[in-house]
Amino acid sequence: MKKDIVIVGAGLAGSLCALYMLKRGYKVRMYERRSDMRETVVKAGRSINLALSERGWTALRKVDIGSYVEEISIAMPKRVMHDVEGNLTDQFYGNQDQAIFSVPRGELNVMLMNLAEERGAEIFFNHKCIDVNMVNPELIFENTVDNQNINIKCDLIVGADGAFSAIRNKMMKQDRFQYSQHYIEHGYKELLIPANKDGSHKIEKNALHIWPRGNFMLIALPNLNGSYTCTLFSPFDGKNSFNELQDKSSITNFFKSVFKDFTPLIPDLEEQFINNPTSSLGIFKCFPWNVKDFCVLIGDSAHATVPFYGQGMNASFEDCRVLDEMIGANENNMLKCLDDFSRIRKPNGDGVQDLSLHNFIVMRDKTADPTFLLQKKIEQKFTQLYPEKWIPLYSMVSFTNISYADAWQIGMKQEKLMAQIMETPNIAEVWDSDSVMEKILKLC
Amino acid sequence: MKKDIVIVGAGLAGSLCALYMLKRGYKVRMYERRSDMRETVVKAGRSINLALSERGWTALRKVDIGSYVEEISIAMPKRVMHDVEGNLTDQFYGNQDQAIFSVPRGELNVMLMNLAEERGAEIFFNHKCIDVNMVNPELIFENTVDNQNINIKCDLIVGADGAFSAIRNKMMKQDRFQYSQHYIEHGYKELLIPANKDGSHKIEKNALHIWPRGNFMLIALPNLNGSYTCTLFSPFDGKNSFNELQDKSSITNFFKSVFKDFTPLIPDLEEQFINNPTSSLGIFKCFPWNVKDFCVLIGDSAHATVPFYGQGMNASFEDCRVLDEMIGANENNMLKCLDDFSRIRKPNGDGVQDLSLHNFIVMRDKTADPTFLLQKKIEQKFTQLYPEKWIPLYSMVSFTNISYADAWQIGMKQEKLMAQIMETPNIAEVWDSDSVMEKILKLC
Repeated sequence: MKKDIVIVGAGLAGSLCALYMLKRGYKVRMYERRSDMRETVVKAGRSINLALSERGWTALRKVDIGSYVEEISIAMPKRVMHDVEGNLTDQFYGNQDQAIFSVPRGELNVMLMNLAEERGAEIFFNHKCIDVNMVNPELIFENTVDNQNINIKCDLIVGADGAFSAIRNKMMKQDRFQYSQHYIEHGYKELLIPANKDGSHKIEKNALHIWPRGNFMLIALPNLNGSYTCTLFSPFDGKNSFNELQDKSSITNFFKSVFKDFTPLIPDLEEQFINNPTSSLGIFKCFPWNVKDFCVLIGDSAHATVPFYGQGMNASFEDCRVLDEMIGANENNMLKCLDDFSRIRKPNGDGVQDLSLHNFIVMRDKTADPTFLLQKKIEQKFTQLYPEKWIPLYSMVSFTNISYADAWQIGMKQEKLMAQIMETPNIAEVWDSDSVMEKILKLC
Repeated sequence: MKKDIVIVGAGLAGSLCALYMLKRGYKVRMYERRSDMRETVVKAGRSINLALSERGWTALRKVDIGSYVEEISIAMPKRVMHDVEGNLTDQFYGNQDQAIFSVPRGELNVMLMNLAEERGAEIFFNHKCIDVNMVNPELIFENTVDNQNINIKCDLIVGADGAFSAIRNKMMKQDRFQYSQHYIEHGYKELLIPANKDGSHKIEKNALHIWPRGNFMLIALPNLNGSYTCTLFSPFDGKNSFNELQDKSSITNFFKSVFKDFTPLIPDLEEQFINNPTSSLGIFKCFPWNVKDFCVLIGDSAHATVPFYGQGMNASFEDCRVLDEMIGANENNMLKCLDDFSRIRKPNGDGVQDLSLHNFIVMRDKTADPTFLLQKKIEQKFTQLYPEKWIPLYSMVSFTNISYADAWQIGMKQEKLMAQIMETPNIAEVWDSDSVMEKILKLC
């Protein structure tokens, strides 16, 4: 009998999961709270982009859609670091042929939804999940257009409904369900650098631009239309906080003093700053991710993270691939599939969250720190000499499918080891000597 | 104008809070989800008792009801530790004139509700809170008898609705609201030692009895009617777990092997074990505890903890006293009252939770450890010599009103210091020597 899957949420995770379930030959219905984004014009100034990296590609290719996504992506093989004086430094992420990719969130989502529909999924928009039965797979949705409630039965519920998941909210009332929502002190605000009149990019296209400033930072990712979506990350309160930037003149002064070369790129900077919302950033954890053999969480509903490693979408896509593998291994024992998925995948949800929080420090602080940059150079050299002995943390996360949990553990060991190496006398002079390389080899 | 207070929950915290607000001359209405417990017969075998200690008494006396509660309490100046062989050891909690008190939860709650009504509060039972307005102080309750919803407006909402608080659940959706629910690996099951036929107690009355067994333990608190309410704390899974105790013979074998002197005290042990539920234990944290100037959480809704320090009720009672003090200091600025309460009280919520988790290890493991008992003897001697220099942690928590946060911090410093003292050669022989006392004095 054909399995009947209901996916709650037609975002990135839900839509890719649909493609996996369709490939298995299952019946797929998706219920989305919002209206069909394909019918609404994407507002200018809200063109959000995301970084797609190796594990995201792996998950896309397994359902044969990598080539479609390539067409809307921009390779970013490096960071370009902008210092306070406006000087630029290139920081390559890996080898010269490795890159992360800027993709437009809206367009990617539309593409995945279209592909899911083409391959047989039904998508119901304006359907808000208002209740889930925790004994049998049955849901109640409110049709927000006609305010009618409908009951839906199925074999398997996939909760892909994001950080504020209705499915997880219902699971929270199960006895012994572990849950936490932790908001960090920082928030973010998006800003848009417009394209030049001829549609070209105002700054280097194939790079992630970063203005690291200690306890706050600004980043910019390129869009295909020549614009850049920028994000300022700052504390809500205290020094250099959003709270201090309430009027035009304080905004102007702030940007001119700390983002000298950035300020001229946005003519209506103050207007954008005042009109765009300041949003919060949180880490959401829970366990287990399943209810018996009929309900499972994937993506942000299971492990929403802060965006500093650019791994939120990649982790969600990997969830889809791994869930599909678990089902492949035990198709007739869904309880084992979902229990395994929850148990095996949870440490990786924690892993991507630990990595994300850690990378915030790296990005806002370390990318402007000569000692850190020297350490990265030493690691890079050692990797080239002994590729089987050492993959730098950033590469493990972004250019391999090594599990997040393993990457985090190995990465923290590497940090400790490199702290010893950096204590070598005159390390800045002798960093690429044989003796330093041998010392690392010995400590490995 | 008379302030109009709505308290959600007529449990221990809600009822005492009502008495405080009434003493201020406020109008008080209480809404309780359950039916009036005064009308239902308290079921035999479910007579739960709680340990009342100094800060609980302080909060009760401030609204002039200490003497009433004294009448239903039993002093427990000591633990009686039962080892595997059935040997007993007395462990006094403090000085011989200090004690914690066993009080019956149901009777105490009834007493507080009666007093609140006598002093002018209205209590509405069978009213389930189903929505709270987070912009203005307005609530919707469902009358669970006639299924009608009613809207209630007031000046101040006090959420005293326990670990699964409806008020907190609504606050959780506020941006940047911090929340976690963490269940520990252990659960608990209650058992009742009946009184002797003449109504007398089967084991020593004025004591908390404890059977510490490493990763699990059993405790018994005396009731006025000659019975004891006992609680077995064990892991849900693994060795010595509830999961292993599913049938009569495994229960019998378990109790006979590890609780030799306890087993004969309960004739229908196996029946009780099978019929009584196994319940979970969790730590619930959140922040902030208030919404603007019109809603505040107290008691378990703000900081539910595991029961191992017997401080849950005491912390809730202290909340009532402290909230009242904050209001007294700024009666015309309720925003400041509630902001202060949340900010100042939160570290103490965390404190009582840290203390509770820590005391689980002490109770189930350390109370049977000769080294730990020796350490306590040394501390006791030093306290008698230098009372202004040292109050043992247990005494700070149970016999003073020192804040939980301070008690926890001081206690952890004491632990470190005593670890050094315990390394003294031949400490078991020289523990009460002048040199050991001087060494502590120097390290203090």
